[in-house]
Amino acid sequence: LPKSKSFINVEDRGYQFSDGVYEVIAVRRGVLIDSSEHFDRLFHSLNELDIYIPWSQAVLRVLIKEVLARNNILNGYVYLQISRGVASRNHIFPEQGVRPALVILANGLHRVKALRTEGVGVHTLRDNRWGRVDIKSISLLPNVLAKQKAAEFDCYEAWFFDDDNYITEGASSNAWIVDKMERLVTRPLGIDILPGVTRFRTLALARAEGLEIQQRRFSVKEALSANEAFLTSTTAGVCSVVKIDGHPIGSGIKGRVTTLIERLYKNYLESFSIGS
Amino acid sequence: LPKSKSFINVEDRGYQFSDGVYEVIAVRRGVLIDSSEHFDRLFHSLNELDIYIPWSQAVLRVLIKEVLARNNILNGYVYLQISRGVASRNHIFPEQGVRPALVILANGLHRVKALRTEGVGVHTLRDNRWGRVDIKSISLLPNVLAKQKAAEFDCYEAWFFDDDNYITEGASSNAWIVDKMERLVTRPLGIDILPGVTRFRTLALARAEGLEIQQRRFSVKEALSANEAFLTSTTAGVCSVVKIDGHPIGSGIKGRVTTLIERLYKNYLESFSIGS
Repeated sequence: LPKSKSFINVEDRGYQFSDGVYEVIAVRRGVLIDSSEHFDRLFHSLNELDIYIPWSQAVLRVLIKEVLARNNILNGYVYLQISRGVASRNHIFPEQGVRPALVILANGLHRVKALRTEGVGVHTLRDNRWGRVDIKSISLLPNVLAKQKAAEFDCYEAWFFDDDNYITEGASSNAWIVDKMERLVTRPLGIDILPGVTRFRTLALARAEGLEIQQRRFSVKEALSANEAFLTSTTAGVCSVVKIDGHPIGSGIKGRVTTLIERLYKNYLESFSIGS
Repeated sequence: LPKSKSFINVEDRGYQFSDGVYEVIAVRRGVLIDSSEHFDRLFHSLNELDIYIPWSQAVLRVLIKEVLARNNILNGYVYLQISRGVASRNHIFPEQGVRPALVILANGLHRVKALRTEGVGVHTLRDNRWGRVDIKSISLLPNVLAKQKAAEFDCYEAWFFDDDNYITEGASSNAWIVDKMERLVTRPLGIDILPGVTRFRTLALARAEGLEIQQRRFSVKEALSANEAFLTSTTAGVCSVVKIDGHPIGSGIKGRVTTLIERLYKNYLESFSIGS
């Protein structure tokens, strides 16, 4: 269906309660990048919300391929959303028999803004999201408001900090620094950050390259005085952060380690072809 | 439109980001109860999210009346939801020109379960919602999970407690106790609770009756040893809470003050007729 003719019911629980989950998967030369990790996370999210879907991973893969094919998309992104389904409005889960609602959208590659390849600015603000952001739910209003606030400060992303002034993550990405000891630092997994698939892949690529990595918390203050900073997400890939709250990070331009990581990730994306 | 044929677009920001707000208004003999308070709160919510709607309050009233008339509903509830509108998925607000999406649904009176007239049980759990629950947004996933958890404990409602073990409010209602001094106690307004319209009306009715009221925080511990407890919401009205976490409150049956408040609110609802 064309998007303009794709509809869901007004009593879909995704619409009335943000009772649903989603994934965004990159597509290169027809291949779903890191699809196992995305499906694992999808099923983790569904499981945490007690949403049981009638579609196996194999069926979802067939449906996604079909949507990509009908839209002639070889390179781009798939957006997949599953809600608990349509039922008369009532907070508690509907009786069994309500079928989850599935939406799959395909988009071509966004044109990456010049700004992003040169590095972006980040605006920090207190993390005021709910307590289970490890679940990739559509309950994203605080993320929307944070990214909007960042945009008003000419920043691409918002980085949240917790009550102890440690960065949790970005509104739609994971947060990283290269510390004074030239180590890659990112917050360990927990219920306070999303287990980013690009975060996972970046860790694996950096490890393979022999880079030193620390999964530990880092404060806003440490980030401001770090050698380098960057963010990772499916849509932004690896993206240099050259300013935080208006203060230049390191030399104020994309750093050596970030450039390396960015290249590793790009090479990884380019290593896929239809056969793989 | 019949509900089964009422649809919104898959890229409605309410569906992808829970970027929208709602109100539930009681209707008695065709009158929208406390409609000024509901509209004031609606416009507060919209304003906090920078959503600008092309419909005045007068236009919304006409549309609501039309939906009620077409559904032949004189007594029941109106559900009104407004999202930021339909736009290609991107966290930040879309360019001007995107029209907010409006949904109005009408329902007859729910049959009140016997349980509710005798008093209900409440299950307490840590408040893990986002930081701006004074905005009546559709970002309700934690509320859904809390009410579901409560239902699994045979409770009608979940009461959230904050980091200091003070009750904030229920997942879909405000929380009250009658303390040892026979005073009505409910948490003061702030960004940590919804400014309930039934809460507001209950305060006004209790004040007119000469009851002593304290708007202050109360802890789970104080609630457990309170003389009485109850909750207020548009759909539940004034509803006695006779058990918290399995412990009977007071004598374990609906108390004297709660019975009075419940009667005051019912009389208030019954005082409306088409002319008013």
